[in-house]
Amino acid sequence: MTHEWTMATRTAGMGANAIREILKVTGQPGMRSLAGGIPAPEAFPMEILRSLTQEAIDRFGSTAFQYGLTEGFGPLREQLVPFLAGKGVVAAPEQVLITTGSQGALSTIAQIMVSPGDVIAVEAPTYLGAISAFNPYEPRYVTIATDDAGVIPESLEEVVRDNPVRFVYLTPTFQNPTGRTLSGARRAAIADILVRYGVLCVEDDPYNDLRYRGEAVPALHALAPDHVVYLGTVSKVFAPGLRVGFAVAPPAIARWMVTAKQGIDLHTSSFNQALTALYLESGALARHLPTIISLYKPRQEAMLAALERHFPPEMRWTRPEGGMFVWAEGPAGLDTVAMYERAVARQVAYVPGGFFYAGVSARDAAAAATMRLNFTMVDEATIEAAIADLGAVVAAALEG
Amino acid sequence: MTHEWTMATRTAGMGANAIREILKVTGQPGMRSLAGGIPAPEAFPMEILRSLTQEAIDRFGSTAFQYGLTEGFGPLREQLVPFLAGKGVVAAPEQVLITTGSQGALSTIAQIMVSPGDVIAVEAPTYLGAISAFNPYEPRYVTIATDDAGVIPESLEEVVRDNPVRFVYLTPTFQNPTGRTLSGARRAAIADILVRYGVLCVEDDPYNDLRYRGEAVPALHALAPDHVVYLGTVSKVFAPGLRVGFAVAPPAIARWMVTAKQGIDLHTSSFNQALTALYLESGALARHLPTIISLYKPRQEAMLAALERHFPPEMRWTRPEGGMFVWAEGPAGLDTVAMYERAVARQVAYVPGGFFYAGVSARDAAAAATMRLNFTMVDEATIEAAIADLGAVVAAALEG
Repeated sequence: MTHEWTMATRTAGMGANAIREILKVTGQPGMRSLAGGIPAPEAFPMEILRSLTQEAIDRFGSTAFQYGLTEGFGPLREQLVPFLAGKGVVAAPEQVLITTGSQGALSTIAQIMVSPGDVIAVEAPTYLGAISAFNPYEPRYVTIATDDAGVIPESLEEVVRDNPVRFVYLTPTFQNPTGRTLSGARRAAIADILVRYGVLCVEDDPYNDLRYRGEAVPALHALAPDHVVYLGTVSKVFAPGLRVGFAVAPPAIARWMVTAKQGIDLHTSSFNQALTALYLESGALARHLPTIISLYKPRQEAMLAALERHFPPEMRWTRPEGGMFVWAEGPAGLDTVAMYERAVARQVAYVPGGFFYAGVSARDAAAAATMRLNFTMVDEATIEAAIADLGAVVAAALEG
Repeated sequence: MTHEWTMATRTAGMGANAIREILKVTGQPGMRSLAGGIPAPEAFPMEILRSLTQEAIDRFGSTAFQYGLTEGFGPLREQLVPFLAGKGVVAAPEQVLITTGSQGALSTIAQIMVSPGDVIAVEAPTYLGAISAFNPYEPRYVTIATDDAGVIPESLEEVVRDNPVRFVYLTPTFQNPTGRTLSGARRAAIADILVRYGVLCVEDDPYNDLRYRGEAVPALHALAPDHVVYLGTVSKVFAPGLRVGFAVAPPAIARWMVTAKQGIDLHTSSFNQALTALYLESGALARHLPTIISLYKPRQEAMLAALERHFPPEMRWTRPEGGMFVWAEGPAGLDTVAMYERAVARQVAYVPGGFFYAGVSARDAAAAATMRLNFTMVDEATIEAAIADLGAVVAAALEG
């Protein structure tokens, strides 16, 4: 006999993951998936990992397998200090909290900060994983308008002036899904707004090191450290399966994050923290990063070139200086959800962009005309062929 | 300038971890700590871990470091099927969910099941980590009375009859903090109550394999699989720092757990799941378990013998057949919090038992007369000497 169990009231807001359904096809044989959001497995430093596992056991012994402090493994917190400083994030080791990936940080922050009905301000479009971390705490979303250069400061100011915003969630560098990066000037304007309005910002920065062109821009945290929770991860530069992320937060928030995290998962894997500490300490990250970039950079260039060649003139797309995604937008009327089946029939998968708009239907006209294209999981020739076919599908949809 | 940040309403209920303060002394030089709740590092299979890391890389390659399914790593889910069957828990691989330790399962279950004010029924005393997993979701606790044989079924029936209980949280085998194990007859009575009242039970079973004497008792899940979420972990038989746990739940609950876990941490470390899969598959667990037991069994015997020798006749304590703890109770009037400083002055630490009573002040008379004694982290000679000194402190406190 199957009993019917009643869930918490919050649980209703957690379901309905339509994107999961749409992505099921990506595993089909022959499918050329531009729908992914994950690093290429050939980017993982397998031989380094092999030797680091032995080194971690030699160096840390049973400590690498014992329960650890919720705050994180000491040697990793220390190694992250110079790593963070390189991004403009100044923090002492005891200010660095280790999290179970960035996802763990996002859900922990929502747990301590968000009461039902509280407002979270997000970019339109924004990162889906953040929305699924926040949703259980029943926030209301307000969206900040973006243009080709990312978040529009005037829109942010309007949002925080007119709404009791609990925090603003931003990915200032190589954003998921758009790939856009905020300029130094926009960051300064945003930092000024945060400080003037006394608003907290959660700065999610997973792609920072994946820069293929241009100059690095210091983190928003550098400009308003008392108003920014900075989140990083080693998922894109080491290995995502280790689930190691980190956070630097204003002290009062950091304290509550630790208390909350203790209830959520006690602490992040000691062994994986030890591996990450050695990856940083040994200089292996610095040595391996060029390998990752030399893998992704030509893939991104291939995608941008293929879009140029094969996408109809009505389409526009971002030309990011790094990260994992290109974002394409069509004129109102294009419906990338409706078009999806035809793309799949030609063995190309992507993510319809409407899914990245919090609190907006995926079929909303402006949102429906967008799509996210990932270039990390497919080689250059496949990208060229897939974009050619996708371009034909888009052209047919625009005519249709 | 430090900004004052406002937290969510739920956050207030998460703080005040008095036990953290009291445990700070356990790190002092010379301190003989019976306050721990963690496995002995010398119980970790270090050489097995060393070779499994290489084997996992050989066998699974980059998959062991890539993002994985929220549900868990396939080979581990398969390996857990016979492991669980040995405890009476019958589940197909796709019914086994991997969690970030048992803590991850407890917090996930609370997130999907508990609305503010909902009732969770817990043993008096109960496991503190569960309380910190549940508290963010603002439950109300009702307590189930226990005696020397654990949960009293009549008390459970009264509780579920008189309260709209969302779920009952139990540790039927070698409970933390008491070490008590429910008999087969009590389990049958409890299963019958769960089914008759249509109540869900979360069965937390971290200590099951640490049996030093007596016969194994099948899990409660075996008796009422549609009404029990079974939770296990490899923390006590492999390594806690890996943060690998597992759950078998009724299908409707399992589906929501996966949705919630995706928002909380995406998935549990792929590499650590791969290591655990190989630990089970290779038979290393079966080979190593006797080593762990041969370490803990004499420590537990030393503690029981020392209590016999040194504790005043007014004191009573449990004689568990396994696990990590002995629970001692004094007559009303004994205050193990007040006594703590004198114990620490004699270089002995323990956990005052009052902390393990949900919704009851640690200074409540019956609760205040209890203490939890751990025997896994100290050798036999230290246990003998520490219990001798603690006995003298208790005797002095009783004389008052």
